[in-house]
Amino acid sequence: MAVDVALQFEVENLYARYASLLDDGPLRDWPDLFAEDCLYLLIPRDNYDRGLPLSIIRCESRGMLVDRVRATQETIMHEPRYLRHHITNVRVTNMDGQRLAVNAHYSVIEVLPDALPRILSVGRYIDVLQRRGDGALEFVEKRCVYDSVLVPNTIVYPV
Amino acid sequence: MAVDVALQFEVENLYARYASLLDDGPLRDWPDLFAEDCLYLLIPRDNYDRGLPLSIIRCESRGMLVDRVRATQETIMHEPRYLRHHITNVRVTNMDGQRLAVNAHYSVIEVLPDALPRILSVGRYIDVLQRRGDGALEFVEKRCVYDSVLVPNTIVYPV
Amino acid sequence: MAVDVALQFEVENLYARYASLLDDGPLRDWPDLFAEDCLYLLIPRDNYDRGLPLSIIRCESRGMLVDRVRATQETIMHEPRYLRHHITNVRVTNMDGQRLAVNAHYSVIEVLPDALPRILSVGRYIDVLQRRGDGALEFVEKRCVYDSVLVPNTIVYPV
Repeated sequence: MAVDVALQFEVENLYARYASLLDDGPLRDWPDLFAEDCLYLLIPRDNYDRGLPLSIIRCESRGMLVDRVRATQETIMHEPRYLRHHITNVRVTNMDGQRLAVNAHYSVIEVLPDALPRILSVGRYIDVLQRRGDGALEFVEKRCVYDSVLVPNTIVYPV
Repeated sequence: MAVDVALQFEVENLYARYASLLDDGPLRDWPDLFAEDCLYLLIPRDNYDRGLPLSIIRCESRGMLVDRVRATQETIMHEPRYLRHHITNVRVTNMDGQRLAVNAHYSVIEVLPDALPRILSVGRYIDVLQRRGDGALEFVEKRCVYDSVLVPNTIVYPV
Repeated sequence: MAVDVALQFEVENLYARYASLLDDGPLRDWPDLFAEDCLYLLIPRDNYDRGLPLSIIRCESRGMLVDRVRATQETIMHEPRYLRHHITNVRVTNMDGQRLAVNAHYSVIEVLPDALPRILSVGRYIDVLQRRGDGALEFVEKRCVYDSVLVPNTIVYPV
């Protein structure tokens, strides 16, 4: 497999836009980074490693991601908060025709009003990317596999 | 806008030197990364989003940055501490003639003597870069927009 | 010194594999990233800066790294835990014939069962890389210089 520098740059740029939309908005544009027919999972590492399906969030289409975003903004009652993502160690691990397997490490730091920043979640992304008709990369599958067992308080926004 | 890989590499290298000078020194070389006529702000996100000007640190020239560095080393009484920056998701968001708009995410972890590492500040950089006569990139504007409202203890060094 | 984009990509890819092997395994493949005749140090910043040799971990060959990995899996009694590395600001600081000097910032977040994620260690890597016969990069020297004085609990796995 020959991953060239230009592809690496393109992939990292997708992750940078992903992080930017989640942390600084507009959040409603975030689902556009996904294929219409996609899978998004937020799953604990212990379940992932054992092949157990139970996830905290499971969305099986872009439409469900749109719903999720709307819920965070209109339906769910929650304390206001800011998130800050760091996505590092982005690595293309496989290329299969039009699809790329990509792994990355993430951390999400959460800031609640009148509180010091704290670590909300750390883990890795295990993703599949593909090209759209216009050539841009998008997520087909995104598994956010988080290391922790405990979740402090509530997961409101996507990881 | 066509951001090529070589430009991305150059920009990331500037941020790596920025982080290295702040965390491992020599701190007195840090202002050299800025244009003589520059703007450096450390501003809370809530103010930035509302267009309110109040900042924790505001420097309007490289000379003021030099003063700030001298103050941390000679004037301000403060407990010794180490900082560690992570700068990720570096993204050129606009190119306008000789100027680049660049966004990045940052976190700063602080280590005080006999204390465990803790998160001092997280947020994003909203920056403008330009080329010097010798071709190197430098900061013309740097806005460190931090997510938190509370600041633990004191901000001594630049973020 | 002319560091080109292709070299930077290669170096970052080595660090990404390093982080991936430590956090997600298989840990037994981790020593393969090092030269047979290598040096691995985990050393506090205060000692490193003063030229004092005392380190928390000191391994002087790949064989000692293999032993260390085996110890963590077979000999040392320790609570199970997950680590998550972020390695950023990777920068080639010198090239001397076949050898590269590389600096990077790291943070390691630790997750113990039934506990929230916490910062185990932050600091910088001060490394020397070389090429193998097959052209791949490997570590000849790796100094993990951590900023903190206190270590929460125990260092089990390499940093």
